Amino acid sequence: MSGLYAVILAGGSGTRLWPFSRQNFPKQLLKLSQDGQYSLLQETIRRIESRISPENMIFLTSEHLVPQIRSQISEYLGDASKLCRIVGEPLARNTGPAILLGALIVHSRDPDGLVLALPSDHVIEDVSAFSRAIDTSLDAARDGFIVTYGIRPARPETGYGYIRAGERVGSVYRVDRFEEKPGPERAREFFEDPDYSWNSGIFLFSANAILEEAGKHRPDLLKQLEGIDLEHFTNIREIFESIDPISIDYGIMEKTARAAILPTTMGWSDLGSWDSFHETGVKDDKGNVVSGNVICLDTTDSLLLESGKVMAVSGMKDVIVVDTDDALLVCPRGRSQDVKMVVARLDKEGMREHIDHPLVRRPWGTYLVLDEGAGYKVKKIVVEPGQKLSLQLHKHRSEHWVFVKGEAVVVCDEEVKTVGVNDRIFVPAGVKHRVINDGTVPAEFIEVQYGDYLEEDDIIRFEDVYGRID
Amino acid sequence: MSGLYAVILAGGSGTRLWPFSRQNFPKQLLKLSQDGQYSLLQETIRRIESRISPENMIFLTSEHLVPQIRSQISEYLGDASKLCRIVGEPLARNTGPAILLGALIVHSRDPDGLVLALPSDHVIEDVSAFSRAIDTSLDAARDGFIVTYGIRPARPETGYGYIRAGERVGSVYRVDRFEEKPGPERAREFFEDPDYSWNSGIFLFSANAILEEAGKHRPDLLKQLEGIDLEHFTNIREIFESIDPISIDYGIMEKTARAAILPTTMGWSDLGSWDSFHETGVKDDKGNVVSGNVICLDTTDSLLLESGKVMAVSGMKDVIVVDTDDALLVCPRGRSQDVKMVVARLDKEGMREHIDHPLVRRPWGTYLVLDEGAGYKVKKIVVEPGQKLSLQLHKHRSEHWVFVKGEAVVVCDEEVKTVGVNDRIFVPAGVKHRVINDGTVPAEFIEVQYGDYLEEDDIIRFEDVYGRID
Repeated sequence: MSGLYAVILAGGSGTRLWPFSRQNFPKQLLKLSQDGQYSLLQETIRRIESRISPENMIFLTSEHLVPQIRSQISEYLGDASKLCRIVGEPLARNTGPAILLGALIVHSRDPDGLVLALPSDHVIEDVSAFSRAIDTSLDAARDGFIVTYGIRPARPETGYGYIRAGERVGSVYRVDRFEEKPGPERAREFFEDPDYSWNSGIFLFSANAILEEAGKHRPDLLKQLEGIDLEHFTNIREIFESIDPISIDYGIMEKTARAAILPTTMGWSDLGSWDSFHETGVKDDKGNVVSGNVICLDTTDSLLLESGKVMAVSGMKDVIVVDTDDALLVCPRGRSQDVKMVVARLDKEGMREHIDHPLVRRPWGTYLVLDEGAGYKVKKIVVEPGQKLSLQLHKHRSEHWVFVKGEAVVVCDEEVKTVGVNDRIFVPAGVKHRVINDGTVPAEFIEVQYGDYLEEDDIIRFEDVYGRID
Repeated sequence: MSGLYAVILAGGSGTRLWPFSRQNFPKQLLKLSQDGQYSLLQETIRRIESRISPENMIFLTSEHLVPQIRSQISEYLGDASKLCRIVGEPLARNTGPAILLGALIVHSRDPDGLVLALPSDHVIEDVSAFSRAIDTSLDAARDGFIVTYGIRPARPETGYGYIRAGERVGSVYRVDRFEEKPGPERAREFFEDPDYSWNSGIFLFSANAILEEAGKHRPDLLKQLEGIDLEHFTNIREIFESIDPISIDYGIMEKTARAAILPTTMGWSDLGSWDSFHETGVKDDKGNVVSGNVICLDTTDSLLLESGKVMAVSGMKDVIVVDTDDALLVCPRGRSQDVKMVVARLDKEGMREHIDHPLVRRPWGTYLVLDEGAGYKVKKIVVEPGQKLSLQLHKHRSEHWVFVKGEAVVVCDEEVKTVGVNDRIFVPAGVKHRVINDGTVPAEFIEVQYGDYLEEDDIIRFEDVYGRID
């Protein structure tokens, strides 16, 4: 019997939950649950790991996100993460090409393999209902149906697509009709009609079935995707450049006669906006969703998220206040879509607050700029256990390091020495250096840079374990 | 002819413009004008300096604020600031004791001296109107009137006291009646009645006159204050502990038959709340008062102040958002008095965000904590030209310094050397050290502390030019 595979969609622009999400740190990487233990991506793995083994998990993401996706998978799965497949898409081409590429990878290993295609940035509170839905629909998928999971609407939402269930076939229903995001009146009709569900964007199908349907309805696209070298993906950029973006719904699901729906209730939310975050969040007795150090006086039905300092909110109603180290959002509930305009404005003005968090992730760890001024910059640098920075030099700056946690091996010119807390190192401009953490705890140091040019591109690398030398 | 003196009230709790103002950095120290050049205290000096010389200026403030008040006066007046008298009150006793103490100081030098008593945290936009008002009332003050300046009401404000003008006497009017803060209906009546003015809290009187009236209406208080040693203030704590707080209005003005009023229009505001700040601020075409890096979409009639990061506000109306490095306030316009409750809550919860700004001022300069963690703390330290830290040692921490601006003389154990940018110094625990800036620009360095105890009280001082050794 053929296996079950997951095609996990882990791209995204990082716009909708700004300022928590950023271009280089989109929603699926956020640890949004109450306990903050797992990111949405990790929760997605957690939801399927009992039935899908790591070697059957295929992640599709944007090329620039691959290191962070890999790091989060590794944080969750440990060594087994090396069995997962992570594909970096050089350009965003919507869900159609991504899902079909995933199906092609599965097909190359197991033509009858069943594929669970799912976004990595949704919340599903009732994981057993999710599991039961998959069990219920396995036969239909084996029979060639492309099963989509419908969510019984909780409200007349105008932000989602709807699907109308038709004739019953076994444990699923044929799809009668896809409906685009409706106006308020139609949304109300759909909400009251038991045949309508929200489109969750989660699918189950056999690799064979979806590729047959792609061949029928999108033959050009399929042919282009079939040209991709599935071993080394050497030509993926060239091919992605030549294809048009298209959603799987528009490209295949709305065309195929094999679309089926299984209506479910599984505590699903796409967390597609701060409004949706408030909607699904745990509320206090005033209807507020609050996190962080918040002083909340006479305030109701609001979303108040603070990370790091004190937020005092008094006398407000239906407001969204989301604060981070470098950016603050304030808007009324119901207007959280405005964040798109905010991000567009930031982009237009050449700012960076929609692209990165102040905490910058690197393959070896992280750094955070603590302060900068004329001629100097202060960073806190964390090197994870088992990681090493490249052997490098800077032409325009000296670096002063003071170690404050763990131990590291420091290479500086000809000298190699092990340093620990309260040790200091001076690296003059022009001197080759490297930091290696071969310990078991993170090594942390404070770096004071001094020089006439302090940008990241003043770096000459001589050796790098992460392949960052061209 | 007797001279003109200023008694400048520069105490205050730092509550009303929180989070900009703090207990240790109240409103008069804030640089709130568009260009941010002068603080309200400095603007107060600027307003009177053409007619009152520094040696005739007497500042009354809270004891703990003396260094900062002195520093701002010095920043504005330079060397002449040494001629000013600054009196630190050990306890807050309201305006009555402060003004009478100021009058006693003047009286001891010049019994017929005229005293202009004025708060240091108000805004007066029309300085020539202010000057004209003083000119107009000089004769009345010489004739023994205690002149208060009334402000023609701009709106039916319920937050101020009102004064009704009575019979005209020369260029001023006798005070007919003082009215406490009225309800909305009475405020409307007062607003429509041309005889009523707001009580500005600015007074002009001869030292003789006010002390005579104090002797008549508050003989006990006057006697207590007369016991204060006006040369060295050695017994001021003991005496302040024995007196009751009382405002000059309630204590003298409402009792005396010599109260006069001069109604004026001088663009006055007490900036007593964020609402008042919005009311008097320069508005954009949507009625918003905006400062800092603010992205403002479809937002009207709001006060949006950002210091340091990006604030995005969309779809809001009549909102106050004030953000600082460590604290954020969000409330509707009209509710800015709520900030008192916020500060009370911070105090109750043992927090610090209502007491100090992250930037800590010292007699020799400033420091800012950039980062802290287990066993370490990172500070940026600025030593002003001509200043020196105490000769000191720490028992529990080592310090690593990297200089990033200016030059300094560093004493470390037996060694004395001059250091400049990109130089580093290591001060082990237990070693006596000192930093002296005898240059002409600020000296800045990054300090990484490492040790098992990192609080400010791990300091043993051997020499200190600021008298901080008991």
